[in-house]
Amino acid sequence: MKKFLPIKAMFLVISIQALIFQPANSAEKQVAPAPNGIRIPEGYKNWQMISSSHRTDNQTLRVILGNKIAVKAARNAKTKPWPDGTILAKIVWKDSQHPLWQAATVPGALVHTEFMLKDSKKYVSTKGWGFARWKGMQQQPYGKDADFAQECLTCHLPAKGNDYVFTKPASLP
Amino acid sequence: MKKFLPIKAMFLVISIQALIFQPANSAEKQVAPAPNGIRIPEGYKNWQMISSSHRTDNQTLRVILGNKIAVKAARNAKTKPWPDGTILAKIVWKDSQHPLWQAATVPGALVHTEFMLKDSKKYVSTKGWGFARWKGMQQQPYGKDADFAQECLTCHLPAKGNDYVFTKPASLP
Repeated sequence: MKKFLPIKAMFLVISIQALIFQPANSAEKQVAPAPNGIRIPEGYKNWQMISSSHRTDNQTLRVILGNKIAVKAARNAKTKPWPDGTILAKIVWKDSQHPLWQAATVPGALVHTEFMLKDSKKYVSTKGWGFARWKGMQQQPYGKDADFAQECLTCHLPAKGNDYVFTKPASLP
Repeated sequence: MKKFLPIKAMFLVISIQALIFQPANSAEKQVAPAPNGIRIPEGYKNWQMISSSHRTDNQTLRVILGNKIAVKAARNAKTKPWPDGTILAKIVWKDSQHPLWQAATVPGALVHTEFMLKDSKKYVSTKGWGFARWKGMQQQPYGKDADFAQECLTCHLPAKGNDYVFTKPASLP
């Protein structure tokens, strides 16, 4: 004779599993949207690493994270173009000198978090990318109106050959 | 009348969910252990970000990732000491100049991946930390014998006040 469990019990098991695996952070819901309507992606701080960079022209250290679609594309070298659904998150800090290791630059104050969202139809006017940035720990949206994204795109034009993305995924074993 | 599903079906649901949420990468199983017996942690490339650094003394750019215990401690400022079970992963690349942005240093060739594993009982001879490093894309274990960890510890002694860890978690909103 087969053993049975009530359907309700099965859904309880699934619900508990969903709770365990769901990212706890939904603080992003409180953040005001960018002037072009883009909302700060939920859970971006927990995304996987794609690369890092250090800019001496504005003394900032950066880590670039990606959502699942972005990371899959990065790890499989499928980034020309990046697939629709890609979101790249760049977290930018002011340079700080490590107090115990003079020759090491480490993240100081948070400058901003910025994002590129790939949707070749929705963002056709900005080469398939939605741009957004939130300033500082208060996460103030950047830009006076929706046109700010043209400023982003202008800066990204030199990277046209890399689908307008400066970030090249870092080598991993 | 209650509706029932066979127990077998329930386990199938759970198994499929487990597959979905399990890190796909088990390539680490192929990597030779460090001379002190530490194995390269599975799935470390998919861990969450804790910080980054740029060292001008050896021209390397670094990203520091952590396992779930480490990230929870980092995000809640509970790192003095880091809890047992913490694993910190540092991925180290040689400096490279961004081809489209001269003032940007980006990850070049992978130098090594290195790890600190906190277990205050198991690693009592090295201040509660197990050290391990794998060199290059081939992930060759570092060190001639188990004593190599004393070399690691010696270098980390200046960070005694930070539980022997140089990394300070980067500020996040």
